[in-house]
Amino acid sequence: MKISIAQINYHIGNFEGNLNNMKRAIDEAKSQNCDLVCFGELAVCGYPPRDFLEFDDFIRLCTESINALCAYAQDIAIIVGSPTVNVDPLGKNLFNSAYFIYDGAVQFVQHKTLLPNYDIFDEYRYFEPAKSWDTHVYKGVRFALTICEDIWDVHTDDPMYTTIPLDHMAKQNPDVIINISASPFSYIQAEKRKVVVKANALRYNLPLFYVNHFGAQTELIFDGGSLVVSPTGKIVHEANYFEEEIFTYDLKDVQNGYVEKVQSYSKVQLIHDALVLGIKEYFGKLTLKSAVLGLSGGIDSAITATLAQRALGDRNVRGLLMPSQYSSGHSVDDARQLAENLNIAYDIIPIQPIYDQFLSSLEPIFHDLPFNVTEENIQARIRGTLNMAISNKFGNILLNTSNKSELAVGYGTLYGDLAGGLAVLGDVYKTEIYELAEYINKDGEVIPINTIRKPPSAELRPGQKDSDSLPDYSVLDVILFQYIEKLQGPQDLIEMGFDPALVARILKLVNTNEFKRYQTPPILRVSPKAFGMGRRMPIVGKYLS
Amino acid sequence: MKISIAQINYHIGNFEGNLNNMKRAIDEAKSQNCDLVCFGELAVCGYPPRDFLEFDDFIRLCTESINALCAYAQDIAIIVGSPTVNVDPLGKNLFNSAYFIYDGAVQFVQHKTLLPNYDIFDEYRYFEPAKSWDTHVYKGVRFALTICEDIWDVHTDDPMYTTIPLDHMAKQNPDVIINISASPFSYIQAEKRKVVVKANALRYNLPLFYVNHFGAQTELIFDGGSLVVSPTGKIVHEANYFEEEIFTYDLKDVQNGYVEKVQSYSKVQLIHDALVLGIKEYFGKLTLKSAVLGLSGGIDSAITATLAQRALGDRNVRGLLMPSQYSSGHSVDDARQLAENLNIAYDIIPIQPIYDQFLSSLEPIFHDLPFNVTEENIQARIRGTLNMAISNKFGNILLNTSNKSELAVGYGTLYGDLAGGLAVLGDVYKTEIYELAEYINKDGEVIPINTIRKPPSAELRPGQKDSDSLPDYSVLDVILFQYIEKLQGPQDLIEMGFDPALVARILKLVNTNEFKRYQTPPILRVSPKAFGMGRRMPIVGKYLS
Repeated sequence: MKISIAQINYHIGNFEGNLNNMKRAIDEAKSQNCDLVCFGELAVCGYPPRDFLEFDDFIRLCTESINALCAYAQDIAIIVGSPTVNVDPLGKNLFNSAYFIYDGAVQFVQHKTLLPNYDIFDEYRYFEPAKSWDTHVYKGVRFALTICEDIWDVHTDDPMYTTIPLDHMAKQNPDVIINISASPFSYIQAEKRKVVVKANALRYNLPLFYVNHFGAQTELIFDGGSLVVSPTGKIVHEANYFEEEIFTYDLKDVQNGYVEKVQSYSKVQLIHDALVLGIKEYFGKLTLKSAVLGLSGGIDSAITATLAQRALGDRNVRGLLMPSQYSSGHSVDDARQLAENLNIAYDIIPIQPIYDQFLSSLEPIFHDLPFNVTEENIQARIRGTLNMAISNKFGNILLNTSNKSELAVGYGTLYGDLAGGLAVLGDVYKTEIYELAEYINKDGEVIPINTIRKPPSAELRPGQKDSDSLPDYSVLDVILFQYIEKLQGPQDLIEMGFDPALVARILKLVNTNEFKRYQTPPILRVSPKAFGMGRRMPIVGKYLS
Repeated sequence: MKISIAQINYHIGNFEGNLNNMKRAIDEAKSQNCDLVCFGELAVCGYPPRDFLEFDDFIRLCTESINALCAYAQDIAIIVGSPTVNVDPLGKNLFNSAYFIYDGAVQFVQHKTLLPNYDIFDEYRYFEPAKSWDTHVYKGVRFALTICEDIWDVHTDDPMYTTIPLDHMAKQNPDVIINISASPFSYIQAEKRKVVVKANALRYNLPLFYVNHFGAQTELIFDGGSLVVSPTGKIVHEANYFEEEIFTYDLKDVQNGYVEKVQSYSKVQLIHDALVLGIKEYFGKLTLKSAVLGLSGGIDSAITATLAQRALGDRNVRGLLMPSQYSSGHSVDDARQLAENLNIAYDIIPIQPIYDQFLSSLEPIFHDLPFNVTEENIQARIRGTLNMAISNKFGNILLNTSNKSELAVGYGTLYGDLAGGLAVLGDVYKTEIYELAEYINKDGEVIPINTIRKPPSAELRPGQKDSDSLPDYSVLDVILFQYIEKLQGPQDLIEMGFDPALVARILKLVNTNEFKRYQTPPILRVSPKAFGMGRRMPIVGKYLS
């Protein structure tokens, strides 16, 4: 029994594209004399399809894709994910299912039991959980089919669900476990995934084939890393991260469990490669080619430009330098140096004439009220408007350069530096940005050294520094990480040794700036808890604010 | 047995405020010699608390509030909603519960069974459903406690759940049903609610006391409309909409079921009052007093200004008139007339000098490329920046004036007219805006007649009209309603008689503009399907696009 794992890219709602990709993989599996090829969760429609699932028309197109796969699956079997209509009037109207197809027809369907509904996941919004479990024999081998989360509730102290589907299937003595997944990337996900997949293989003493998507859908990145694991919990094969891979194993060889291929990435390398893929995919799936971004001479825009250049090519990234009277002399020099290092085009538009005209137009209303955040924001919004003008005129997408630390505490101007189609670094803390800079510069200067060394500043008033109003990022980021990723409350943070007044101030900044994050562009998710769809907070809430 | 229904306002995470509000209602119920007072779902913390529920610290504060209510509940019983920790390691870590408190202690707890997880609801994200059901005797009366959705799955052809909690409780022969709710407003909700509550009373032949929140939490408005219904399904009392009401009935009188008070509102009146409450609550809960908005002379900004003036008072609304060379002569006149009708302050800032400076600064990059949407957007973004400058300098919140029709098809400029803290009309179709204008003008001109009669235009280029590029709103809005509210696909719309090319064009506009709506301010929800948290769509999706 030769089983092929097709770790390929899908596009939400692009039925024809997904079908063609799968047909290509089927052809390749056939050329390797495979008996079976496995695709990912909800492969026919892409993941996550979100509220498209509520349209009967969308479900009809899923069914048409399944029919097309039935017609195409000659001399080979396929396992593929698709929504299924729940014909019982009781319960939700859909299941999230794994289809086993061969001889031109659907031979077996197993629905998903454990429906993730936390962080970025909303599966209970659409699907009814499976309440029956079966296995299926094909060419003398008995298969247990599971879907993503179905295998994730073993090996934990605090299970989120009240049943384990493989415990039911195990009673039928299957020979192999298949798991079809759409498991989004974070920098800890690959390690967690290996622990979980190995724990399942060991628990049931069975070989396990795990297939994941690769690619990205707006903020969610799918890293691949598909796995083949032996009954003794040995990883026989871990597929490449961040790229397509179609590979085949004979079930007999997997039973014996030798280690053939594993990946080894550092955290910063994972983040770097994920962000490059995320940018590439966002543009590719929108069929747009080129980006524009403001280059301030600071580290955030420098890293964003570098990642964009690596994703899109140097001819497809355009920098805009928009100095003001408050910009330091080296800002333009540093930005220009970066553009030259990256070999990207750039323009310089000083903003003072526009700024002066704004102040002059507002003078009859402002009179001699003192300079404050208003005038800082006007500068940021002029830059936002200029960036968007380039974006509109030349068909570029504006990339947002905000980092997670400043998004957390609200240090950014709505419609100014918070503008853009995609927030590249919105899930990367400032301290991690410096790690990225070091990683990027490992083989020579790309990010100018002065950009890395100078103290961070928004340069919106004379001599401004981030450290005027915020603690060192090395302290701030730890508090933010404990609050955002680890859900630690004020008392927990104080017990860790942080100053109570500082804790109160930072947590209040985070909570009272929810209104800004509500209007922030989608953020490429690289951590286990990113701002955006995975973190849902009230705006008028009064907790810690 | 005298039962008091406390239809009061809660604020998410404002534990002290919620507790004080409840104590005041307890005092009032005691003064009416009540045996029992009923509060809403998750009353201790407000609804929806969203991801605050993931913080142990937040749950600890909920428990403290329950303890404080125990101490306060002397000589009276209370029923109140709060999260409860699930001590079983299996399943989610919380329940959504109704607490029955008297004699200084929690005497009984029933958890919620049916957890809504559709549209704006995410309850499976946090809560484990109840798997056991009990009733409780207090002063010789046996109570069945239900929480909001628990009673909503009867009387439907396509039940969303697989069990009905009251069917289990009915076996213990309760004397009365209590339902504590946090049921958000839409213009069809009060009618649906009465049908459902009556159906439950009739099904079990029992009196039913239904208590709802009133108030608003950002986009969600709670209209109140609490109910007392007789065992024969007669509405004994329907509480006021959009305001607090604390009222008491003797259970014996309800058994006999006479009709004492019902509400009667037209759809347009419901929308009007809901929006006024929504504005008032957004400002009140953020402890801000005053609003600014751009007045274009058009109907959307005129209606928004009127609603804001009614919510905040004429001294707390400030209009900004920002004519350009493309503005028609009557635009400023109409806007000025509106401001005078409303007795609100306004300023005029012509944008041409700033616009000219933008064009001049961009000239070295744009050269002689032709005028297109870029220059239109620059005008809109100058207005956005000026509005925000007033907002920043004077501490006003900018109100967004976009309507649902234009948000649907993407006729709006990000960071321009799509800016703002709150989108007042973002769930109101253009045709409904005209109905609001007629309603507002029923006792005399508030919205200038010329504003109502002139053809809609963004006035961003010479002679521009909405009808240049869109079908009549009377056609557009029907297609949008069928697609957005009714989930009808392209084939369904064509079968209704719409032109296939028009249908394809409109649906494509809706789906390809998801990226704009992602960055739109929170929208006051008045329909059963609003843009925002209740409609979750992929940005890079390829369906119908």
